[in-house]
Amino acid sequence: MTDTNIKAGWIAVDWGTSNMRAWAMSASGTVLAEARSDQGMGQLSPDAFEPALLAAIGDWIAGPTTVIACGMVGSRQGWIEAPYASVPCTTLPERLVIAPTTHPDLTVHVIPGIKQTQPADVMRGEETQISGFLARNPGWDGVICLPGTHTKWVHISADEVVSFQTFMTGELFDTISKQTVLRHAIAADGWDDAAFAEGLDQSLSRPERLAARLFSLRANSLLNGLSGDAARAQLSGLLIGAELVAAKPYWLGQQIAVIGESRLSTLYIKALASQAVPATQVNAAATTLAGLTAAYKRLKG
Amino acid sequence: MTDTNIKAGWIAVDWGTSNMRAWAMSASGTVLAEARSDQGMGQLSPDAFEPALLAAIGDWIAGPTTVIACGMVGSRQGWIEAPYASVPCTTLPERLVIAPTTHPDLTVHVIPGIKQTQPADVMRGEETQISGFLARNPGWDGVICLPGTHTKWVHISADEVVSFQTFMTGELFDTISKQTVLRHAIAADGWDDAAFAEGLDQSLSRPERLAARLFSLRANSLLNGLSGDAARAQLSGLLIGAELVAAKPYWLGQQIAVIGESRLSTLYIKALASQAVPATQVNAAATTLAGLTAAYKRLKG
Repeated sequence: MTDTNIKAGWIAVDWGTSNMRAWAMSASGTVLAEARSDQGMGQLSPDAFEPALLAAIGDWIAGPTTVIACGMVGSRQGWIEAPYASVPCTTLPERLVIAPTTHPDLTVHVIPGIKQTQPADVMRGEETQISGFLARNPGWDGVICLPGTHTKWVHISADEVVSFQTFMTGELFDTISKQTVLRHAIAADGWDDAAFAEGLDQSLSRPERLAARLFSLRANSLLNGLSGDAARAQLSGLLIGAELVAAKPYWLGQQIAVIGESRLSTLYIKALASQAVPATQVNAAATTLAGLTAAYKRLKG
Repeated sequence: MTDTNIKAGWIAVDWGTSNMRAWAMSASGTVLAEARSDQGMGQLSPDAFEPALLAAIGDWIAGPTTVIACGMVGSRQGWIEAPYASVPCTTLPERLVIAPTTHPDLTVHVIPGIKQTQPADVMRGEETQISGFLARNPGWDGVICLPGTHTKWVHISADEVVSFQTFMTGELFDTISKQTVLRHAIAADGWDDAAFAEGLDQSLSRPERLAARLFSLRANSLLNGLSGDAARAQLSGLLIGAELVAAKPYWLGQQIAVIGESRLSTLYIKALASQAVPATQVNAAATTLAGLTAAYKRLKG
């Protein structure tokens, strides 16, 4: 996984529930190498994080090395809990939390997540993407949408997170399409643009009927030969449409940036365009790295 | 499971996806014995139904015996497909479908389900419960709600099913509470009436915000110590509330009968009462048996 000739100036780590991704960085901020691991937070006890990290990036260490990590690694079930900052707050953390290590040359700083008390909400990892986006777009005000398993809508003003809201849209799509009776109607892959648009339109025009639409996919598959591709795309449209209606206080009249995996971001941008809302697509991995870099620079002053 | 002294006049069978339940009936319609099996349609190939049935009720057979069966046993993946009747239609089927058997004394008649083309919908098993309810309440007009994994709302007029709609509420509750991140927030059991009422009220007053409410359960658990019992009850309230809003064209201004498992039926009756809609609770098993009996009587003439 790693190149033994690489000696990192510092190491950037994005450690989520399912995966870990690390970059060997030069002191000046160039990416020297990249490593990935499927040892996500979800499967690690607190004392298993250091061995998992060293297995992935140990070869990069030559002398005292700083690691900056974001994501679920800082949750209560992670390596060490990095207590949430509270909105309103900057996304560039004032204080990082040092994780316990045994390797003599390793210092691991964990970036805290952000919480909101009312309505209750939390994020871990997205704050670093936002901070990276703001580092590249100084003074930007507006709303950032971060689509994914748990999509976030985040209101940014004067370099601070003012408020945010999480939607379980990605996880609902995954669970409903794979774990319910709809699995018989929905293809594992495949797509149909018109069916996506139809689902979107149904939820946008009559959001209160979402609960009634779901079983129709199964019935339309049984009785009317609705294809697995069309059912898949229509479910996605129904769920993203329902999210858009509920997130309207966020996107209405705002400039929007969408940070996420490319295919999914495109769906959100199409959905927003259907409401005449323009949105800018932003590369997620580059933004995460920019956020980790901003945290490193601040730490090193 | 069975009593070898029982000789059935005929046998009533309710065969669903997960379970099978059978009753030995006297010619005059008295229940002589009951048997259950966990060999549901979901795990049986077509040629495995007869052995599964005989394993449960073979001892009841003394001479030529008629079996009347309803439920998923008649689906395309079942013992034999009993093609759907189309609405508008009576729930007492005009034609039963005979399943292939090898036992010389066994004749198995399967009750067809009901379909609706627009909006597409299907039922299998509920038609028999409705037919049993109507056999006990001749001339009844109104709306029948059958809560369960896939809750049905059914408009009955002049002894016919006029239209119906299925909601995946039970399956969504089960899947969301067990398979998503909310599993960390939701107790496996337990209840909180006030939290149910709060979830119900949230969905009834702002149904378009359902997508936004779900992750709040997780965040309220993390940040505000929302109990697992309260989160469980609130999720139930949110989903039943969303169903009620979408099913309003069914229940508004109608008399309502609720046929289902007792605890779940009580929740629907409470939810309807919150909208000032009175509803009558009906015992599900007795209704199924009454429907199977009505089909037997019609067959025998």
